[in-house]
Amino acid sequence: MTANFAASRVAFDLPEGVIYLDGNSLGPLPRAAVARVQRTLREEWGDMLITAWNRAGWMEMPRRLGDRIGRLIGAGPGTVVLGDTLSIKVYQALASALEARPDRRVILSDTGNFPSDLYMAEGLVRTLGRGYALRTVAPEAVEAAITPEVAVLMLTEVDYRTGRRHDMARLTAKAHAVGALTVWDLAHSAGALPVDLAGTGTDFAVGCTYKYLNAGPGGPAFIYIAPRHADLVRPALSGWLGHEAPFAFDLDYRPGAGIERMRVGTPPVVQMTMLEAALDIWDEVDLDDLRARSIELSELFIAEVEKQAPQVTIASPRDPQIRGSQVSLKFEHGYAAMQALIARGVIGDFRAPDLIRFGFTPLYTTDADVAGAVRILGDVMKTRAWDDPAYRRRSAVT
Amino acid sequence: MTANFAASRVAFDLPEGVIYLDGNSLGPLPRAAVARVQRTLREEWGDMLITAWNRAGWMEMPRRLGDRIGRLIGAGPGTVVLGDTLSIKVYQALASALEARPDRRVILSDTGNFPSDLYMAEGLVRTLGRGYALRTVAPEAVEAAITPEVAVLMLTEVDYRTGRRHDMARLTAKAHAVGALTVWDLAHSAGALPVDLAGTGTDFAVGCTYKYLNAGPGGPAFIYIAPRHADLVRPALSGWLGHEAPFAFDLDYRPGAGIERMRVGTPPVVQMTMLEAALDIWDEVDLDDLRARSIELSELFIAEVEKQAPQVTIASPRDPQIRGSQVSLKFEHGYAAMQALIARGVIGDFRAPDLIRFGFTPLYTTDADVAGAVRILGDVMKTRAWDDPAYRRRSAVT
Repeated sequence: MTANFAASRVAFDLPEGVIYLDGNSLGPLPRAAVARVQRTLREEWGDMLITAWNRAGWMEMPRRLGDRIGRLIGAGPGTVVLGDTLSIKVYQALASALEARPDRRVILSDTGNFPSDLYMAEGLVRTLGRGYALRTVAPEAVEAAITPEVAVLMLTEVDYRTGRRHDMARLTAKAHAVGALTVWDLAHSAGALPVDLAGTGTDFAVGCTYKYLNAGPGGPAFIYIAPRHADLVRPALSGWLGHEAPFAFDLDYRPGAGIERMRVGTPPVVQMTMLEAALDIWDEVDLDDLRARSIELSELFIAEVEKQAPQVTIASPRDPQIRGSQVSLKFEHGYAAMQALIARGVIGDFRAPDLIRFGFTPLYTTDADVAGAVRILGDVMKTRAWDDPAYRRRSAVT
Repeated sequence: MTANFAASRVAFDLPEGVIYLDGNSLGPLPRAAVARVQRTLREEWGDMLITAWNRAGWMEMPRRLGDRIGRLIGAGPGTVVLGDTLSIKVYQALASALEARPDRRVILSDTGNFPSDLYMAEGLVRTLGRGYALRTVAPEAVEAAITPEVAVLMLTEVDYRTGRRHDMARLTAKAHAVGALTVWDLAHSAGALPVDLAGTGTDFAVGCTYKYLNAGPGGPAFIYIAPRHADLVRPALSGWLGHEAPFAFDLDYRPGAGIERMRVGTPPVVQMTMLEAALDIWDEVDLDDLRARSIELSELFIAEVEKQAPQVTIASPRDPQIRGSQVSLKFEHGYAAMQALIARGVIGDFRAPDLIRFGFTPLYTTDADVAGAVRILGDVMKTRAWDDPAYRRRSAVT
């Protein structure tokens, strides 16, 4: 018997008549976030003005919230800090890892990685020059490609397109065996499944908070550094809030203690308070219960899709152990099909060229949601509802 | 007769009994921001969920708001984009400028620059290696130090400590005469005085929105690139939203058109909407009127300080033409004096080792505020109110 998430579902303000299966892209609004933001605006910013940096604890939030995220990803207190965007955090982690392996020049990644991670690595190796290079292989070829040339193995645990999950423990061990370091992107892991950063011995990890963690659009990213590295790395993005004494206004940079040095500029306070409200919900969640329920939901979805929508192909791994908390379907007219689904109140999303994605988020997704979504998908397929020119018009975010 | 800012003052929610002279550090809450954020949370995030990226125009905000800031800094449409923090934007501008001068290795800056700008430059030159170096001279020695070795001149127009203003037009011309490029930090300029980026021929500029622009704590930063460079620079921080086609999810980075390539990761939507509410106030403001009124306020302040608080020294330039919109006072017990002032309802701030700063922000600062602040300052000095141990205890943000 899996745990009951009825209590967490009511913590979200979900619109009537919508089945939301895109929490893997943008989590929904936690009810408490509205009042929390009001308080931040009126009682903190409005009333305390500049003094709120101290009096309302704004300055400490990136570290304080980092500890709360740490619990969800198997990271000890003082090893995670919030700030910036995931892309920036990737750059910081990679630059630090490369510097810790000065005799090596290769970043190894895979073609299933989120493109922005690859782009940031490209920009970094170009900035570094001196023969630094990004090498990408197919996801299934990663293990064999971990050779002693590799300085850093940079992977996203759960593939954003298919939900395919890498074996973090195994690949980290392999990397360490050849003397390489690891940077794991947890964008589709944090809040989706149990992560054990300390247990796997991962060196660096990064992630975002606006997907499964429900911090809202553009919520801050996070970065983890294993304690054995944290006081050794020298930040490439050496901003004042990562300085040992930001308010001494020294002319020279001296890195702050441990993970603090990964802070850069002034943190986005209001987005931080939204994250804080979202984390209140997470504090009650057991990750193993969550994972069991997520598998239950995605298995139900797959079984029903096979019955009711034979026109589509399951693009995600069938083995739930190597699948994250989403299921992707391959369909030639995927873009238009997703538009047709959205018009009928089922919100997932589309990833080029032909994948439609559905995220399962036990905090608020029910069996009835899954059943309803598949029923409507079956109907869209049977009636060829996607074959409507209105659904083929592309917009900016697809 | 200077323009009347009574209309803009009521647009802010200023606490009763407080004289706020720290808008140069954190602007106060625009009344409209509260409702605007509510709408973003409930009607956009809450109701539209992921579809709000298109339907609520979130994806376009960094560019759309960039154009509105552009008007305040003499930048044409399509040359400014929002995102990240000022430190990150400094890094991007510097990296781009250095790449545009591949035969040179020196960044020239001054010791009056905001330390984070220097720190970011330090981190960049260390990452670049290959003989790249940051050279800092005293502010008054900058002009003579602009030699043909210099790749990039990086300066903050208005000194954060003293309010001393560099001559942007003159130094930019000097830099160009020796073949160097310029990066101007407008943190204490945007919304404080007229800036003419296009007219001065500046190559790059960066700034923040939470000071004079009143976007709220941690509001996004902005970056400007002169149109002649915008399609040539190759971003060091090559994130997906700066890609030519972010939603094609290509494996290789291709920079987006012009300033769009300076976008990195997912923008902080809620902070953006707060900025939007703040800019509604700015749309009505004439910058020359603002500057005239700012000078009137700061001149009044200085005149009254000289009369009523002879214990302090004016640390800002006396000539208002070479002063920004703040006045700094030098006082041995500055930290405790500021604490005493704050306890008496006058909020300015302290910068080590001995400066107390007061920002004049015509949108909401009145003659009565100035008179009241100086009266209380005079009283704090006369009664040695600063000589109280409670005022000497330092907190995180000083």
